[in-house]
Amino acid sequence: MLIEKITQALSAVREQKPLVVNITNYVVMNNTANALLAIGASPIMAHSTQEMAEMMSFSGALVINIGTLDSVWIPRMSYAVEQANLHKKPVILDPVGCGASTLRTETARTIARLANKLIIRGNASEIIALAGEQAQSKGVDSLDSSDAALGAAQCLVSEYGANVVISGETDYVVTQDQIVKLNNGHQMMPYVTGMGCTLTALTGAFAAVGDDTGLAAAAILGVVGEIAAEQSRGPGSLQMNLLDELYQLDEATLLQRLKIQN
Amino acid sequence: MLIEKITQALSAVREQKPLVVNITNYVVMNNTANALLAIGASPIMAHSTQEMAEMMSFSGALVINIGTLDSVWIPRMSYAVEQANLHKKPVILDPVGCGASTLRTETARTIARLANKLIIRGNASEIIALAGEQAQSKGVDSLDSSDAALGAAQCLVSEYGANVVISGETDYVVTQDQIVKLNNGHQMMPYVTGMGCTLTALTGAFAAVGDDTGLAAAAILGVVGEIAAEQSRGPGSLQMNLLDELYQLDEATLLQRLKIQN
Amino acid sequence: MLIEKITQALSAVREQKPLVVNITNYVVMNNTANALLAIGASPIMAHSTQEMAEMMSFSGALVINIGTLDSVWIPRMSYAVEQANLHKKPVILDPVGCGASTLRTETARTIARLANKLIIRGNASEIIALAGEQAQSKGVDSLDSSDAALGAAQCLVSEYGANVVISGETDYVVTQDQIVKLNNGHQMMPYVTGMGCTLTALTGAFAAVGDDTGLAAAAILGVVGEIAAEQSRGPGSLQMNLLDELYQLDEATLLQRLKIQN
Repeated sequence: MLIEKITQALSAVREQKPLVVNITNYVVMNNTANALLAIGASPIMAHSTQEMAEMMSFSGALVINIGTLDSVWIPRMSYAVEQANLHKKPVILDPVGCGASTLRTETARTIARLANKLIIRGNASEIIALAGEQAQSKGVDSLDSSDAALGAAQCLVSEYGANVVISGETDYVVTQDQIVKLNNGHQMMPYVTGMGCTLTALTGAFAAVGDDTGLAAAAILGVVGEIAAEQSRGPGSLQMNLLDELYQLDEATLLQRLKIQN
Repeated sequence: MLIEKITQALSAVREQKPLVVNITNYVVMNNTANALLAIGASPIMAHSTQEMAEMMSFSGALVINIGTLDSVWIPRMSYAVEQANLHKKPVILDPVGCGASTLRTETARTIARLANKLIIRGNASEIIALAGEQAQSKGVDSLDSSDAALGAAQCLVSEYGANVVISGETDYVVTQDQIVKLNNGHQMMPYVTGMGCTLTALTGAFAAVGDDTGLAAAAILGVVGEIAAEQSRGPGSLQMNLLDELYQLDEATLLQRLKIQN
Repeated sequence: MLIEKITQALSAVREQKPLVVNITNYVVMNNTANALLAIGASPIMAHSTQEMAEMMSFSGALVINIGTLDSVWIPRMSYAVEQANLHKKPVILDPVGCGASTLRTETARTIARLANKLIIRGNASEIIALAGEQAQSKGVDSLDSSDAALGAAQCLVSEYGANVVISGETDYVVTQDQIVKLNNGHQMMPYVTGMGCTLTALTGAFAAVGDDTGLAAAAILGVVGEIAAEQSRGPGSLQMNLLDELYQLDEATLLQRLKIQN
């Protein structure tokens, strides 16, 4: 039933081509837009408060990524979340570097409190820090294992009414009712910048067509990243192959590769 | 004669290496700079009003792209256009997402009114919205066909004294005197973000060496995109191959591939 | 002994995975982050004054790149350099487009004066302009040869107490005591945007593990760029192959290829 949900979400994105509004960091704007296009969605990177009400009225989801945060962007993010709430659109929060600075931790919590329909996608250190536990965050790369973040993820589920995706060597999709474990992916993936941000953006596309758990995106990016990495000599070709494989992915390949447990 | 104009423009860019100043969106800064380098031009991404007078004094063209617009960037764009006017330099406007928000539509019109030597490059929905007709704009991907935008393009030609390029499955180059139709390209191209922005940037390079119509850039990117896509498994490799083919393009290949009608 | 220093620096980066804070330009944020990851370091792109004190307390180096400068970013850069000084961390300055505008020249000098432990990495035109000599700067591409910038580099060494890397067809690493000449690289490299910025970012990674001269980064990027370009049909594949080869580089290949003289 989980697997069926994933394959249906993939078809739905390709048929509906949902518009996903992204307020994201400067580093990954290009590759997350490309990942959204490759899977079949329609990305728009927009941040001005002057157009956000219009944007949220016809978009399918809002992605908020705090990777290159400053005082100019924070009010834009809050305003966009309010508009998403108004239009009952899901918000996907990527708390990049949460725990590495007070600014990031507090901004991530502000966004999480504000959003009505929320999915949080972070690495283990970020999830732990967001939940207020002691994480090993330094910078934006995780120093904790996904397993260690499971309790924190459950805290976030109850505190914010959110669904939570912990990504790492093992990915966990944590909701009120269950924990799903995904074991795809490849050890070369952390050598491409913004791989987590790409997962967050894709989570927006699938949320726009009804997957409010983050499961479909995590399952698909794990499988696609694994296929792409197996053909890659290094992170340069991995980034390129990832987009090609998102574009080429068919249901049979997905089903054959997927390692899922609940 | 049109074909000769295109091949001469290509040689001129490679010989003169014109400097093209770009005030463009965060998403495409990297790949449009790379496309300009690959074709033989010299890109600079600069936006500060404190240096724009100097920049426009020795540059060959100004590219204005409103893809990630806000109130901080709008006055920078206007000031840059004024400096371009002062130095009699062409301005190439990319009205990204025009029609999708009032902010974008109005800003695009302000820039269009302000520029003295203007080329507009947009997709069909953007051209229709800029001309004030009813477009199907949602986000930044076109929902209209290029044919449907021809009348709107002609309105823009007379309203702003501009030359207009409509890009899409068919590209049209619309000037006071004629309409040129280009039938190169590939259906995979819209799956790479900023392909239209790349065309706009290249239009700046060719404008800097004297092509005030946008024809050379549209012809060349259509041919190069087609060649690149034929070798590509997906949009990741298309983006890479496009830069390689811009760099490798020779006159014989261009002539052999070009599908042009007027 | 120079060669040993380079190979030891490479091992140290891969073992210690130093965190490198980058305040850099919008164009190259993605590929410089990817280059840092590929060589084994941990990049963070952060610019807010609200988190910079925290960031500099646990990072290994600060990279300042003025490629897309404006009045909003200049105080952020100065503040970050002050924090780096406070924590005795090295600052690597990339004076992109120095000489092409007064704003860039003056900002680069302000940063250079402010930083206590400084490495400057620029192309010949930028180094000449920074030293106050007459350069041929137009835009961001060098119009001078590296040899012509040697005197200027020596001026910068004594004026700012900095070590200086001039990159170009020949690279020079200029310190108080010696000039090291590097003859790797490939003529296709200037056709990829931000190749110099990538060198600056890598210089930050090696500075974080103790190479305060810029030598290791220049040697390694020269060799890797050469290997990558030899396999590349154009600048698109060069950018991809460069990341793969940074990731794959081993000591034997480095030693076999390296052309170094002092």
